[in-house]
Amino acid sequence: MINTKFSECISACTNCSLICTECATSCLKEKDLEMMRECIQRCLECADICQLCVRMQQHNSPFLKEICELCAKICEYCAEECEKHSHDHCKKCAEACRQCAEECRKIAM
Amino acid sequence: MINTKFSECISACTNCSLICTECATSCLKEKDLEMMRECIQRCLECADICQLCVRMQQHNSPFLKEICELCAKICEYCAEECEKHSHDHCKKCAEACRQCAEECRKIAM
Amino acid sequence: MINTKFSECISACTNCSLICTECATSCLKEKDLEMMRECIQRCLECADICQLCVRMQQHNSPFLKEICELCAKICEYCAEECEKHSHDHCKKCAEACRQCAEECRKIAM
Amino acid sequence: MINTKFSECISACTNCSLICTECATSCLKEKDLEMMRECIQRCLECADICQLCVRMQQHNSPFLKEICELCAKICEYCAEECEKHSHDHCKKCAEACRQCAEECRKIAM
Repeated sequence: MINTKFSECISACTNCSLICTECATSCLKEKDLEMMRECIQRCLECADICQLCVRMQQHNSPFLKEICELCAKICEYCAEECEKHSHDHCKKCAEACRQCAEECRKIAM
Repeated sequence: MINTKFSECISACTNCSLICTECATSCLKEKDLEMMRECIQRCLECADICQLCVRMQQHNSPFLKEICELCAKICEYCAEECEKHSHDHCKKCAEACRQCAEECRKIAM
Repeated sequence: MINTKFSECISACTNCSLICTECATSCLKEKDLEMMRECIQRCLECADICQLCVRMQQHNSPFLKEICELCAKICEYCAEECEKHSHDHCKKCAEACRQCAEECRKIAM
Repeated sequence: MINTKFSECISACTNCSLICTECATSCLKEKDLEMMRECIQRCLECADICQLCVRMQQHNSPFLKEICELCAKICEYCAEECEKHSHDHCKKCAEACRQCAEECRKIAM
């Protein structure tokens, strides 16, 4: 549990990045690996963009809206794939991605 | 507030990484910039190693002890500098670094 | 010297990321630190986005155009600041940023 | 082709990070995905540590020897797995890992 107060969006992106990495790692151990290719790929990408989005928020970047817009799209793209799978880590990941996308859109708009 | 349950060490490293980035950015805006050179440098480095340490924990790396040992050292090194300064962000950062070092040492041992 | 053949854009982004980190570190050691605040800030941000842009190209992301568009903007923003300074590392950095922006724009269009 | 002159070790780590990411992505598209689990996992980890190792070299970290020592170990660990596979990207990756480990060891000693 992270016990410092950051903005809603920084928290959501941090959470999403952690959970996407978790999901990618768990997918790599699944029996039905063949089905998880796309999920692994998207989770890795989503983890990276969320991490960058956190940094840019912390730097107060003048490009914050653009990065949040892009981060939201990639989170939704990741969620779409995760929602196809019944693994717990995928469901949890889809949820984190949707929440992150929502927070990012608030800033992007 | 990150609302998912991760290990104590992953949480501490994530927290420390965020707070170090925050501290570096805040230092860059301080009046007495001259005094903050070393603090900025160490915070940037500490933010990076903590982020890596999180990933390696999530990957269940066989090198976990080594990375946690190194992360602890760098956190302590960062804390030593932050403790010299009276800015709020520095004090908060020193605390996060000490806490992170403690959690990392538990795994390293 | 990196001796493997990657795409022009991956090479330019990798190069730019390295040189921006170099510039930020060198700025932190300059006598006229006060003048370098903005340069350090922009270089750190540019180094991060370029690194992400490389990863997304390597992952063949469906959001490649968007990330390259954003990376180009941030590179130009960084170059604008670096061009104000006469330090060698700033001049070199401005050049790397301009080159990277150009390669990113080719993909973004 | 990166056309700026960095140290041998920074170049080797940068190269290794890029090639490991490339290998992980290519592995994810291979027919015999089942066999590639371990390779993907190790390549992702190796790409991350190499990237951090570059940053710490650029920051002139006082922990340079430690990070290079750890980076060398992880590169060798990655190479051991890549060498088991006959895919071109795996062979190329093993080579980059061995070269990177060698450069890192020079600094670690």
